[in-house]
Amino acid sequence: MSTKLRAAIVGSTGYGGVELIRLLLAHPHVAITSVISSSNAGASIADGYPHLNQILTDKLDAVDVDLIREKADVVFLATPHGVSTELSPKLVDAGLKVIDISGDFRLKSGRDYEAWYKHKAADPAYIARAVYGLAEVFADEIRGAEFISNPGCYPTATLLGLAPIAASGWMDPKSVIADAKSGVSGAGRGLSLTVHYSEINENFLAYKVNKHQHTPEIEQTLSRLAGEEIVMTFTTHLVPMTRGILSTIYVNLKERRSEDEIFDLYRKYYEGRRFVRIRDKGKYPATKEVWGSNYCDIGLSLDPRTGRLTIISVIDNVVKGAAGQAVQNLNLMMGWDEATGLAFTPVYP
Amino acid sequence: MSTKLRAAIVGSTGYGGVELIRLLLAHPHVAITSVISSSNAGASIADGYPHLNQILTDKLDAVDVDLIREKADVVFLATPHGVSTELSPKLVDAGLKVIDISGDFRLKSGRDYEAWYKHKAADPAYIARAVYGLAEVFADEIRGAEFISNPGCYPTATLLGLAPIAASGWMDPKSVIADAKSGVSGAGRGLSLTVHYSEINENFLAYKVNKHQHTPEIEQTLSRLAGEEIVMTFTTHLVPMTRGILSTIYVNLKERRSEDEIFDLYRKYYEGRRFVRIRDKGKYPATKEVWGSNYCDIGLSLDPRTGRLTIISVIDNVVKGAAGQAVQNLNLMMGWDEATGLAFTPVYP
Amino acid sequence: MSTKLRAAIVGSTGYGGVELIRLLLAHPHVAITSVISSSNAGASIADGYPHLNQILTDKLDAVDVDLIREKADVVFLATPHGVSTELSPKLVDAGLKVIDISGDFRLKSGRDYEAWYKHKAADPAYIARAVYGLAEVFADEIRGAEFISNPGCYPTATLLGLAPIAASGWMDPKSVIADAKSGVSGAGRGLSLTVHYSEINENFLAYKVNKHQHTPEIEQTLSRLAGEEIVMTFTTHLVPMTRGILSTIYVNLKERRSEDEIFDLYRKYYEGRRFVRIRDKGKYPATKEVWGSNYCDIGLSLDPRTGRLTIISVIDNVVKGAAGQAVQNLNLMMGWDEATGLAFTPVYP
Amino acid sequence: MSTKLRAAIVGSTGYGGVELIRLLLAHPHVAITSVISSSNAGASIADGYPHLNQILTDKLDAVDVDLIREKADVVFLATPHGVSTELSPKLVDAGLKVIDISGDFRLKSGRDYEAWYKHKAADPAYIARAVYGLAEVFADEIRGAEFISNPGCYPTATLLGLAPIAASGWMDPKSVIADAKSGVSGAGRGLSLTVHYSEINENFLAYKVNKHQHTPEIEQTLSRLAGEEIVMTFTTHLVPMTRGILSTIYVNLKERRSEDEIFDLYRKYYEGRRFVRIRDKGKYPATKEVWGSNYCDIGLSLDPRTGRLTIISVIDNVVKGAAGQAVQNLNLMMGWDEATGLAFTPVYP
Repeated sequence: MSTKLRAAIVGSTGYGGVELIRLLLAHPHVAITSVISSSNAGASIADGYPHLNQILTDKLDAVDVDLIREKADVVFLATPHGVSTELSPKLVDAGLKVIDISGDFRLKSGRDYEAWYKHKAADPAYIARAVYGLAEVFADEIRGAEFISNPGCYPTATLLGLAPIAASGWMDPKSVIADAKSGVSGAGRGLSLTVHYSEINENFLAYKVNKHQHTPEIEQTLSRLAGEEIVMTFTTHLVPMTRGILSTIYVNLKERRSEDEIFDLYRKYYEGRRFVRIRDKGKYPATKEVWGSNYCDIGLSLDPRTGRLTIISVIDNVVKGAAGQAVQNLNLMMGWDEATGLAFTPVYP
Repeated sequence: MSTKLRAAIVGSTGYGGVELIRLLLAHPHVAITSVISSSNAGASIADGYPHLNQILTDKLDAVDVDLIREKADVVFLATPHGVSTELSPKLVDAGLKVIDISGDFRLKSGRDYEAWYKHKAADPAYIARAVYGLAEVFADEIRGAEFISNPGCYPTATLLGLAPIAASGWMDPKSVIADAKSGVSGAGRGLSLTVHYSEINENFLAYKVNKHQHTPEIEQTLSRLAGEEIVMTFTTHLVPMTRGILSTIYVNLKERRSEDEIFDLYRKYYEGRRFVRIRDKGKYPATKEVWGSNYCDIGLSLDPRTGRLTIISVIDNVVKGAAGQAVQNLNLMMGWDEATGLAFTPVYP
Repeated sequence: MSTKLRAAIVGSTGYGGVELIRLLLAHPHVAITSVISSSNAGASIADGYPHLNQILTDKLDAVDVDLIREKADVVFLATPHGVSTELSPKLVDAGLKVIDISGDFRLKSGRDYEAWYKHKAADPAYIARAVYGLAEVFADEIRGAEFISNPGCYPTATLLGLAPIAASGWMDPKSVIADAKSGVSGAGRGLSLTVHYSEINENFLAYKVNKHQHTPEIEQTLSRLAGEEIVMTFTTHLVPMTRGILSTIYVNLKERRSEDEIFDLYRKYYEGRRFVRIRDKGKYPATKEVWGSNYCDIGLSLDPRTGRLTIISVIDNVVKGAAGQAVQNLNLMMGWDEATGLAFTPVYP
Repeated sequence: MSTKLRAAIVGSTGYGGVELIRLLLAHPHVAITSVISSSNAGASIADGYPHLNQILTDKLDAVDVDLIREKADVVFLATPHGVSTELSPKLVDAGLKVIDISGDFRLKSGRDYEAWYKHKAADPAYIARAVYGLAEVFADEIRGAEFISNPGCYPTATLLGLAPIAASGWMDPKSVIADAKSGVSGAGRGLSLTVHYSEINENFLAYKVNKHQHTPEIEQTLSRLAGEEIVMTFTTHLVPMTRGILSTIYVNLKERRSEDEIFDLYRKYYEGRRFVRIRDKGKYPATKEVWGSNYCDIGLSLDPRTGRLTIISVIDNVVKGAAGQAVQNLNLMMGWDEATGLAFTPVYP
């Protein structure tokens, strides 16, 4: 134990936090030394999550920077928007490695943050220091970083689907549409009528149409990859299932390309990255095929009738879309194999 | 009873057929006089559908044109593709009113039918006589018709969402994308691994990407409404729920229009049609809000950032997408109020 | 309209209330003249229930006995426990017909009510006047009654399963066990972690073991039917589905009886009552076979190995277990056919 | 790899087989060297299970005892009933360790097997050699065994719930009732109308009432533990979820005992066995709290009103009820820690 990296989890009683617990308990080089909650300090984490009985029953710590510095080497923040804004700078200043799963440091433009999140933006100096942890795209920057802003769940699925074509120069920059669908756990553990069982079971709906706060996050990275400003349409839907995101993405090509060229482009882009799996031509991934795992599976179809490329990208929103990618980022930061503690098989069925 | 219209249902043991039974049992002017099945003749319909015990327990008739002519005035065909191709012409010739829920007479081009359905097309003379029963768009043709080709479930949701803008002349004809999601009942009662419970529960997937046979059906009607040929992208997905279709539709406008103009356009187009409900600005319908009913609910959003229109259209695939619209068409054919027997409230929750 | 019975619904924004709206809208002899809510008076009922758009958009009235007396002839109370305790006596005194769907007047013993419900019991004089509305068992008392206490959902399923054997004298009174399972809508629209989607989807659990407040309600009626005091075991479980209750009931027989005698007993007991359907030997009902309808379907198995009788009883908890039986009781009170407005087919699939 | 135990899986394309693959891939001392299927030999296992892409893509071997002997040290059989009857004796004779997940060697009485399974029973000599692998109850026999008959899913949940009270001498032997509910994956991957999505979603039903083949398996072990013959009532139900079994068990006590005595009894019986977790008084486990894991969680309630004990026992049917317990048995056979490769946290939510 003494040689393990000591990890603290702030916001450990949310779904992202409790999934971090599951993953870090299986990580060979990490020990969870503090589970932290702003609201339930003193209670056992297992009181609210009986599946942790006899596995992890630690008492919840209050949020206290000094205590965290004393108990941990790395801190994960799985907090609602607005908490990390204040807390992460203090943790960074305290010399801790910080991996922020919230949205507070993803947008480089504070103005965008305030427009889309309706919260005050963080200190620009810290925004500038946060490395955007899209692990398959920015691994070089993540290695050696001290402060990671972990991508959102929708952006992870959508950007991994778009990155190769965005970086290729073949994409019509005005044509990008992502139609994304998420399981209900993405809404978290907070109660609301929308995710009350009898309302969302046997139901499917669109929400925040043209208003979802992940839109500028996707555009920012797409623009960086494409080398020009991209404004896109992004629609989010709720699926009556607990886990999984599928993003169906539409892109017009500026010039005629064959489907084989598209497949080559994608396979080369992700060569050597075990967590992205490109399906064979004519095959499309289902969310269940990555359930409980850190994979992102991608299917591609170029329609000769319209010349439009359709990309299907799936992830488990709680793993690759949150806790799993956070652990993958930790692995990269520490110079470990990126799959350490994450090399498990999706649960099927 | 003697004054009621006598109805026969061919394919009464499929989901479309059994929903016709539910609806026609509640219809004040119709009596079900023959339930027909090619495979189970002689058995009681309630053997395979115990919910019909003590409600409708008639023995299933074999498919026999003479018998149908003797027992019925109107015939509904809720049969797999390829059956109606041969059967409907005989029923039409026998002087029966025919409402075909299958896809066999929807496409005016036999070549398109054969390319997308992989079946031999029907006799062009009968294709020409079939009136496409999109009730809110072609009511004038349906009144007085003797042979109706009932629209597909996806086309109903998608075309009702698109009709006003397609007919307006404002739509960029190359820009149409419909991203549609359906509950599992759309796949029917035939067994397959895709809709095996443990495979599709807690799962979401795209299928038949750029290959779905409803594509040319939507394009044909869109082209007619727009007055120019439209080729579109159409993607279908399976949602882990039994009933409901939501189609998210993206259209670029040729010229700048305000959101108010869009709402006016839609409200005027559907004025007086009780089964289409336009949501207020900023509100979007969920499939559950039309569950079990004949409504099609539509939400609209014009994004000032991209100038793109997003249309959300929902139906119950088994009612408005099949049996309900068939009854609505019968009502129109007979000169009855279109809501006769259909004026029930969605089931919620 | 002038000749219709005018109905008010108190608690119209809960699931029981909104189902009453669906059923009464389809009732030929009733008009809804007031939808009442203690919390949202002034808002439209359709604001919180968009499926009612263009169907019923009345403004919610506040709870006001004078206003109710002015607007209605009959009042349904679909309120949380404790509201009817005070309100129903006033409505009864005002000369209104009252059908109380809550549990406040079901237990004849105020002490039992206070022990199981943890609320103060109602005035004994009014408890004595309330007729227990188990429609197939106490129809004679319901006809002509002015104040009905509508049975709970679990008691309806369980008592209809037990009534014939309890009344037969064959049952060992110490042996009764009912293992009941309910869809999630039974928990109502109030938010709680237990029925948060991500918690109860893909989950099954027991709750209130040996503590459910429906236990004394079942025992009271069983004891009355058996003519001796019955104490039973009653267990409740939550099923990841919206609607439906299935109660599996175990009873030892005091003397040897054949399975045929059991079937005869049940068939005779429910002769002429259209909403109870006894399945054939070896067949057992599923909750889906009564979905959305007022049926209670029952299956029976007498095990020769143990001599124990197993009874399977299913209902739709929102219809037969609440709003549907309330309408059935209204029909009986008014001398109408008990199926008036309720003669619709279960929705399948 | 050379020092790892080599494992073959017969029936690897069923749900039990594919879960064995997931678990064994994570086992530190085992290598999967042959995945075997009677029907798809030559195809890749990943063709039918795309979640295994880039993880395990071995070609399926045909069923061939010589080949198995050559490639493996231990064989798991996850086959339909009747296959192991013939195959296991040959594998045992070939000197392989055999763990049979099917029901073919569970019943010591061939007559019972034939009566309940409607198949010819196996050779009595091999039935006698098969050790019943209920890991927490018969660990002493399992250690050192060469041929394990792995318990059924329902018997695992039910027997772990009953074992302490059955062995205590306090239980009325005529009073045992187990009311069990299972997720749909228990029915396997074979297609049938009962587990067709649109039929079992939003549905709950009882099946094989008083006829389930797991009844004699439970009775046989109960009788052995109690030291007298036990005949019980056992009812099975299908829950609209993929994984999980909850068994609600009712037992009368022969003499008055306090609830504290019951809890002591259970805690002592399972002392030191990490995969059984007894909930605190007044708490009851949900199936989701063991989802994806090898735990069996148990809740207890002694009702002072009836003197009856209610036991709630939950497992993941695919893990503890099949593949997980099989691996646990392998661990015991090999003298490894019983949790080797199984010490993962349930997946929540």
